[in-house]
Amino acid sequence: MAKTIIGVMGAGNLATAQDLELAYLLGQAIAKNNWILLTGGRNVGVMDAASRGAKANDGLVVGILPGKDKTSMSEAVDIAIVTDLGNARNNINVLSADVIITCGIGLGTASEIALALKNNKPVILLQPTELTHEFFASLTDKFLFSAETVEKAIALIPEILSNSKPT
Amino acid sequence: MAKTIIGVMGAGNLATAQDLELAYLLGQAIAKNNWILLTGGRNVGVMDAASRGAKANDGLVVGILPGKDKTSMSEAVDIAIVTDLGNARNNINVLSADVIITCGIGLGTASEIALALKNNKPVILLQPTELTHEFFASLTDKFLFSAETVEKAIALIPEILSNSKPT
Amino acid sequence: MAKTIIGVMGAGNLATAQDLELAYLLGQAIAKNNWILLTGGRNVGVMDAASRGAKANDGLVVGILPGKDKTSMSEAVDIAIVTDLGNARNNINVLSADVIITCGIGLGTASEIALALKNNKPVILLQPTELTHEFFASLTDKFLFSAETVEKAIALIPEILSNSKPT
Amino acid sequence: MAKTIIGVMGAGNLATAQDLELAYLLGQAIAKNNWILLTGGRNVGVMDAASRGAKANDGLVVGILPGKDKTSMSEAVDIAIVTDLGNARNNINVLSADVIITCGIGLGTASEIALALKNNKPVILLQPTELTHEFFASLTDKFLFSAETVEKAIALIPEILSNSKPT
Repeated sequence: MAKTIIGVMGAGNLATAQDLELAYLLGQAIAKNNWILLTGGRNVGVMDAASRGAKANDGLVVGILPGKDKTSMSEAVDIAIVTDLGNARNNINVLSADVIITCGIGLGTASEIALALKNNKPVILLQPTELTHEFFASLTDKFLFSAETVEKAIALIPEILSNSKPT
Repeated sequence: MAKTIIGVMGAGNLATAQDLELAYLLGQAIAKNNWILLTGGRNVGVMDAASRGAKANDGLVVGILPGKDKTSMSEAVDIAIVTDLGNARNNINVLSADVIITCGIGLGTASEIALALKNNKPVILLQPTELTHEFFASLTDKFLFSAETVEKAIALIPEILSNSKPT
Repeated sequence: MAKTIIGVMGAGNLATAQDLELAYLLGQAIAKNNWILLTGGRNVGVMDAASRGAKANDGLVVGILPGKDKTSMSEAVDIAIVTDLGNARNNINVLSADVIITCGIGLGTASEIALALKNNKPVILLQPTELTHEFFASLTDKFLFSAETVEKAIALIPEILSNSKPT
Repeated sequence: MAKTIIGVMGAGNLATAQDLELAYLLGQAIAKNNWILLTGGRNVGVMDAASRGAKANDGLVVGILPGKDKTSMSEAVDIAIVTDLGNARNNINVLSADVIITCGIGLGTASEIALALKNNKPVILLQPTELTHEFFASLTDKFLFSAETVEKAIALIPEILSNSKPT
């Protein structure tokens, strides 16, 4: 039976120091709960920090890479899915995760939130700006959550999973 | 030499009556300027209305279909690109257009605006809500435009095209 | 209503002089019949030769590009579809064409023949080697045709189109 | 560091009893060697048999699904990558595997062999028909191997991996 996959998404090169710290903690907590971490796979930003956090707790990390080989892959990725799809791989990121947590915001992340919600995938915005939350809340009243701390984000997951229909 | 392609994007089934009217006018104006219209190709919403508008002025319409055949294609599409990529085709929509105009907002459209701006593609938001404009303006200070009327949106295009580096 | 699209596929850099000559003639004949030509869009090999042939007869050429911009596009392409999908775009090539003609063989072309036949798309092998024909004939007994001349390949198209169910 | 992934590819519904038996043995042997098994993820044919074989030896199985959810997923898949790409996902299958073993032949498998070789990915044809081997050998003189038994196929892998440049 397919294992539970939690996606962590956020900025790459433009991630802030706080984004990176939160992403690391998310990765740690996801591994501690025996969930698989899924990220965009590159060696920068939120993807990399979350992956390193998961590895610190012996978690399993799946990286969905945009390029055609493993160049620029985070060293903390265990299972590299090489897509050669560029940003079209963002749709795979959200379809493959059972729950998505975002950490910070950027254009790629915004596309992933939109694609996730369009596919009825639960999204937890971690410490979103008011503007980010308000924008996406104006587009849907379902599957959108927000949390002020890593602990609260992680605590939402079991409930969300138990409400999801298996597919 | 590749012809200029203008993408018109907006909601499908959830488009409002005003979205449809504006989309039709956009399609007409794009055809009148001898640009090619590109849409998501389906027979609903902004895609369909813009395509019908372009056909009314003998324009050429390219539809980038999400499914694996031409089921649900707008009858106004001349050139059907059948992708079988689901929402991953949104990235093709924005990469193939020289300029993108959005008409209304929804989750699919939000993903396209984000993907376009991430790829440095100019996006004109037609009559955006304040929230939509403010959200995307918070993520980038380049390539994002807004216009209050169809005429003003169309008038922006030649200047945008002349500033774009050919690729 | 969507126009009829004929795909011409074959080697890029490895195309032979004869492949290029036949591809040019195919492009000319497709344009003469008022069909749209679809190719992989790049400025090499069979793609480029077929596109130039079609332009010589004022045809319309759609190029499905593998990269993320128009770098390396054939100058004879009118409508550039920019996919950023690498070789995954081969599936779009075959799904978007009503009939596919191959001219020479290579690994990319072999993948397109296989994907086309898997999708029940008619494929005409132009002057195939015995080995190529025998291999694909061993995998399917439908939708696979071969022709010894450009004229005979073109002559097969109307009959194939009239037997295809519209989708 | 990314773990070694071995892809097993072959027919779905059209697989023969022998294909299924060999695929099961391949899955077992891949798991025994602590490699990760990657398949097309569905609950039929070679994909399913190889996955069940790997699970029988406590292996880890990655399934690259063509649809937009986990419908029709093999129960032996541990990590489901949901692509919604249809057959375009075949390119991800081959890019993500370090070595590919084919078991039987069909149109989908033929597309994967061609895409793999085009991407310089090593392919081991297990008990290929003479025609299959001859066809692909006519298209490339690199990265193509064949083996008469599961044991011999597995024995080729370490040598192939040691000759591959890391990417």
